[in-house]
Amino acid sequence: MPRPIDEYIENGKDLIEQELERLFQAKKIPGQLADSMSYSLLAGGKRLRPVLMMASYQTFQKNTDITLRTAIALEMIHTYSLIHDDLPAMDDDDYRRGALTNHKQFDEATAILAGDALLTYSFEIIAADPLLSDQQKIVLLRDLAKASGPEGMIAGQILDMEGETKELTIEELEWIHEHKTGKLISYAITAGAYLAGVTEVQLKHLEKFAYYLGLIFQVQDDILDIVGDPEKMGKPVGSDHSNEKSTYPSLLGLEGAKEQKESYVKIAEEALKQADAENSYLHQLLYFFSQRDH
Amino acid sequence: MPRPIDEYIENGKDLIEQELERLFQAKKIPGQLADSMSYSLLAGGKRLRPVLMMASYQTFQKNTDITLRTAIALEMIHTYSLIHDDLPAMDDDDYRRGALTNHKQFDEATAILAGDALLTYSFEIIAADPLLSDQQKIVLLRDLAKASGPEGMIAGQILDMEGETKELTIEELEWIHEHKTGKLISYAITAGAYLAGVTEVQLKHLEKFAYYLGLIFQVQDDILDIVGDPEKMGKPVGSDHSNEKSTYPSLLGLEGAKEQKESYVKIAEEALKQADAENSYLHQLLYFFSQRDH
Repeated sequence: MPRPIDEYIENGKDLIEQELERLFQAKKIPGQLADSMSYSLLAGGKRLRPVLMMASYQTFQKNTDITLRTAIALEMIHTYSLIHDDLPAMDDDDYRRGALTNHKQFDEATAILAGDALLTYSFEIIAADPLLSDQQKIVLLRDLAKASGPEGMIAGQILDMEGETKELTIEELEWIHEHKTGKLISYAITAGAYLAGVTEVQLKHLEKFAYYLGLIFQVQDDILDIVGDPEKMGKPVGSDHSNEKSTYPSLLGLEGAKEQKESYVKIAEEALKQADAENSYLHQLLYFFSQRDH
Repeated sequence: MPRPIDEYIENGKDLIEQELERLFQAKKIPGQLADSMSYSLLAGGKRLRPVLMMASYQTFQKNTDITLRTAIALEMIHTYSLIHDDLPAMDDDDYRRGALTNHKQFDEATAILAGDALLTYSFEIIAADPLLSDQQKIVLLRDLAKASGPEGMIAGQILDMEGETKELTIEELEWIHEHKTGKLISYAITAGAYLAGVTEVQLKHLEKFAYYLGLIFQVQDDILDIVGDPEKMGKPVGSDHSNEKSTYPSLLGLEGAKEQKESYVKIAEEALKQADAENSYLHQLLYFFSQRDH
C-alpha cells in the first residue's frame, strides 16, 4: 500500500529542497543575486510540479534519483515565471504565499535578473546532470524549452494579459490555461514517464491525462478564489472577480464549474487506465489536485 | 586573400538574418509576442557575436552552416539582455540603435515576456539543430547557459548596477566587463572553435584571446562615449559621465585608456599566434573591434 499522499508529497518536497540547497552551495553567484534567487526558490512552494514528475516516473519505475535534477530545473522555471508575473508591469502583486514578492523584498531590477538567472540556470542543470545520457538530456531540454517558451507558457501569459478585461469564451479560457499552467504540468508528467521508458502509446494517454489534470488544477484555482479560506491560501480571495477576469465560475457559475471539474476528473481517470497507470501516485495526485483547499 | 572585413561582416549578417526569418516563420507564436520579439531581433544590430562565432570556426574550417543556429541562439540571448537592460527598472532607456526600445514601442509587460521568450527559445534552437550531434548540442547548451547565467552575464549585470554610482577599481571594472559583455564574446569564439575541432591547447589560447577582445570592445565603448559621433552611434554620447559611471577613461584618463587598449591588442595578437590563428578573420575582427567608430 502506498503511504498517504500528503506524506508522499512532503517526502518529495524534502528531496527537492535538499538537492536545491546542494546545487546552490556549489555555485559562485554574487550575493544579492543569489539571495534573490533563493528567496523565491526556497519560499516554501508546494513543489507540485517536481512531485508530479517523480510520481509519474514512480508509476513505472522505482528509484527517482534520475528525475531529481530535471524536476528542480522545472521548479526553477515555475519560480522564475512567478517572479516576473508578480512585477508591477505584470500582475503587480505585493505578496505571494504570505510573504513579500521578490521585487518588494529586493527591488524590481534584482527581481528581473533573478528570474532571468533561474530560467538560464535551469537549462544548465539538465545539461550538466551526471545521471542522464546525452540523448536524454537533449529530449528533456528541448521539451522543457518548448513547454516554457513562446509557443508554450509564455504564449499563455501574453494572451492571459490581453484577455484580462474582456469576456472570453470557454475555449479561449482553456487555451490560455493549457499554455500558461498546463504546459509545465504536462512536462512534469511526460518527462517523468519518458525517463521511466514508457511506450509511445502510454505516453499519448499520459499526455491526455496531463492536459486534463492541468485544467482541473485551474478550475479548482478559480473555485478557491470564491470559496477558499484566505488563511490557508496565503493570499486574499475574490481577486479574479474584482479584476473582471474571465474564470470558470464567471462563465459557468460555481456549480457549473464544479460539474465541469468532475467531468474532467472522469476523462483523466480513463486516460490513466489506458496508460496502465491506475492505482498509482499519479492517480492519488489527481484527487489531491481536484480537492485541494489551497 | 580574404575579402575586406566590412564585406565579411555584411555577408555574415545577411546569413544570420535570413536564417532568423526562416526560424520565426516556422513558429506559432501569438501575434503581439512575435511582433515584440522580432522588433528587437530584427532591429539591425551589428551581429558581432554571430559573426565572431562564424569567423572563429572559419579560422580552422570552411563551410559555416553548422554554426548558424548556435550563432542565432547567441544573438537571441544578447538581444533579450538588451531588452531587459533597457527596462525602466534597469537602465531606463527610451532609444536603442536610433529606434524606440522594446518597452517604449510595446509596453513593459510585453518587453519582459519577449525577453524571457528569446532566452528560452535560444536553448530550443540548439537542442533541435539538425546539423549537430547530441554531444555537440550538450556542450554548446551547457556552455551557453553558463556564459549567460548567474555566474556569467547576469553576474556582471547585477554588479554593474550595484557599482553604478560608486568609484570602482580597475580590477572591479574589468571583472564586471568580463562577465557582462565578455562571457558572450568568449562563447562566440570558443563555441566556433569547438565546432571546428581545435585542440585543447588551441582552445586555451583562444580563450585568452577572447578575454582580451571582450575588454578591448569595452574600452572602445567607453572611449566612444567621449569622442564618438552620436549620429553614427544612434545614441547620445557622454551618458557615462552624467551617470557618474566608472569607465576606463574616468579611471585612467582618455590617453591612458587608449594605451590600455593598445596593450590589450598586443596580448590578443600574441594569443592568436599561439593558437595558430594568425592572418585569419579573427585577426581582422580584432582590429575592427579596437578601431570601430560606433
